[in-house]
Amino acid sequence: MADFQAQYGRYRDMAEAFLLRRFAAPAEERPWQGLWEAMGYSVLAGGKRVRPVLTLAVCEALGGRAESALPLGCALELVHTYSLIHDDLPCMDDDDLRRGRPTCHRVYGEAMAVLAGDALQPEAFRLIAEAPDLRAEQRVGAVAALASACGPDGMVAGQVLDIEQLSGSEEALRRLCRLKTGALLRAAAELGAIAAGAPEAARRQAAAYAEHLGLAFQVRDDMLDVIADQTELGKPVGSDKAEGKRTFVDLLGLEECGRLVEEETRLAKEAVSGFQSGEFLLDLAEYLAGRRK
Amino acid sequence: MADFQAQYGRYRDMAEAFLLRRFAAPAEERPWQGLWEAMGYSVLAGGKRVRPVLTLAVCEALGGRAESALPLGCALELVHTYSLIHDDLPCMDDDDLRRGRPTCHRVYGEAMAVLAGDALQPEAFRLIAEAPDLRAEQRVGAVAALASACGPDGMVAGQVLDIEQLSGSEEALRRLCRLKTGALLRAAAELGAIAAGAPEAARRQAAAYAEHLGLAFQVRDDMLDVIADQTELGKPVGSDKAEGKRTFVDLLGLEECGRLVEEETRLAKEAVSGFQSGEFLLDLAEYLAGRRK
Repeated sequence: MADFQAQYGRYRDMAEAFLLRRFAAPAEERPWQGLWEAMGYSVLAGGKRVRPVLTLAVCEALGGRAESALPLGCALELVHTYSLIHDDLPCMDDDDLRRGRPTCHRVYGEAMAVLAGDALQPEAFRLIAEAPDLRAEQRVGAVAALASACGPDGMVAGQVLDIEQLSGSEEALRRLCRLKTGALLRAAAELGAIAAGAPEAARRQAAAYAEHLGLAFQVRDDMLDVIADQTELGKPVGSDKAEGKRTFVDLLGLEECGRLVEEETRLAKEAVSGFQSGEFLLDLAEYLAGRRK
Repeated sequence: MADFQAQYGRYRDMAEAFLLRRFAAPAEERPWQGLWEAMGYSVLAGGKRVRPVLTLAVCEALGGRAESALPLGCALELVHTYSLIHDDLPCMDDDDLRRGRPTCHRVYGEAMAVLAGDALQPEAFRLIAEAPDLRAEQRVGAVAALASACGPDGMVAGQVLDIEQLSGSEEALRRLCRLKTGALLRAAAELGAIAAGAPEAARRQAAAYAEHLGLAFQVRDDMLDVIADQTELGKPVGSDKAEGKRTFVDLLGLEECGRLVEEETRLAKEAVSGFQSGEFLLDLAEYLAGRRK
């Protein structure tokens, strides 16, 4: 796994550097500088950068250049960041901490947090529309895929189900997961395939990989919420449970959850077994299934 | 002006019908139906539909087919609608009424209103990315133009200036207007030019037209806030003033505002004087300058 760690680090560093260039204190001061600060505070808060890593990895696995996929991967990270900012708002989950730091609205106020999220969305689409290494057809395909993923039948639908607590059965919980976190992960893989100029079949396989990965990821997350300790995760242990939200662990128990993660990881790997250089994707699936934070 | 009224009605009806098809109760029930209802409630609340009308009119004035510009014009209306929903939130302007009806968060709750706005943005970009009559280059150009217009150096920056009340001088108030309402109007005109396949020079002229129109529109709005009575506008007279916000009327007085509207209207008309069939645009500038609501 030493190769895998190095490769993951390379992808993550590419994304980190790209985001830093865009969101570190800009040379030109604006009267609305506070907005950029609030955006930068949340975008540059670290994290695993799973979505851009996935985009870059799928692109390379299908014979593309990771650099050409970089604006697309970072677009996904911006959408992910906006969703976290809005999910943390007082009218939603009302969270004070995110990744061990005060949430955006705790630092910049509620209005600015709403606006920082609002402004990150178009920035994501702009990154794609202006991606320098891609043909117009690729860029417009990526815009359509991202827009579907984070729209009213995608990520936002998942957030609605989450706040309305419509997740009583395993089926309902799978749907919640498929929408709230799965849609964006799926788009991350699809955008990698689009950047590589891969045929439709490869795009579908990449999407299937991400769907299985997404479910494994969420189930593992629920398990960690029970297992891990507060320092490791940077949020109170069992915080989801405390709010009365049902998790995969509640429904299936830890042991069955472990089996589900294993099975979904297997299916994820199977989906990309035909990719010309898919080894990193296989390792990534194993890594996410076994991660301890 | 009878021709103008009929033509305005034709453009507005095209947009209205398009939005109704998308946002009236969909055939397929979803577990997150409430989200679509909240979106539809705000999108189908009527209004002048100035932005799509502008897009369709510029497209035809430059020799294009209005139908081909329809998804682009309606994309602008979705972005406009999301901005109204979020502007009305308790943490922003905290408004109970919009166009004479309860605001989105008063009907559907604060969380759903945030999410309805969040979901309208990607729907806008999807409409453009999937516009059937346009080449990929046109669609990707339109995505980039809209993203810039409604991003952190566009419309959202304007909202930041507005809530931070950074509008003490005439210059600051002009900047606020250029960003908060002007950026989207400018994009409306640009997207019309893009849909028409017009050359860069025509796009710049259309943008200049919309910038002057936007300033005239806002100054006129401030004047109406003083002049009009409550029933006509559907919001309390002088509501902006009551919150301590400075308006063009505060800074310049009614008479000077009248002159400014006249001058900006003249400049707007001048910008499109070379368009092959720009008569509607000339009438539109006159209409908006003289409107009584």
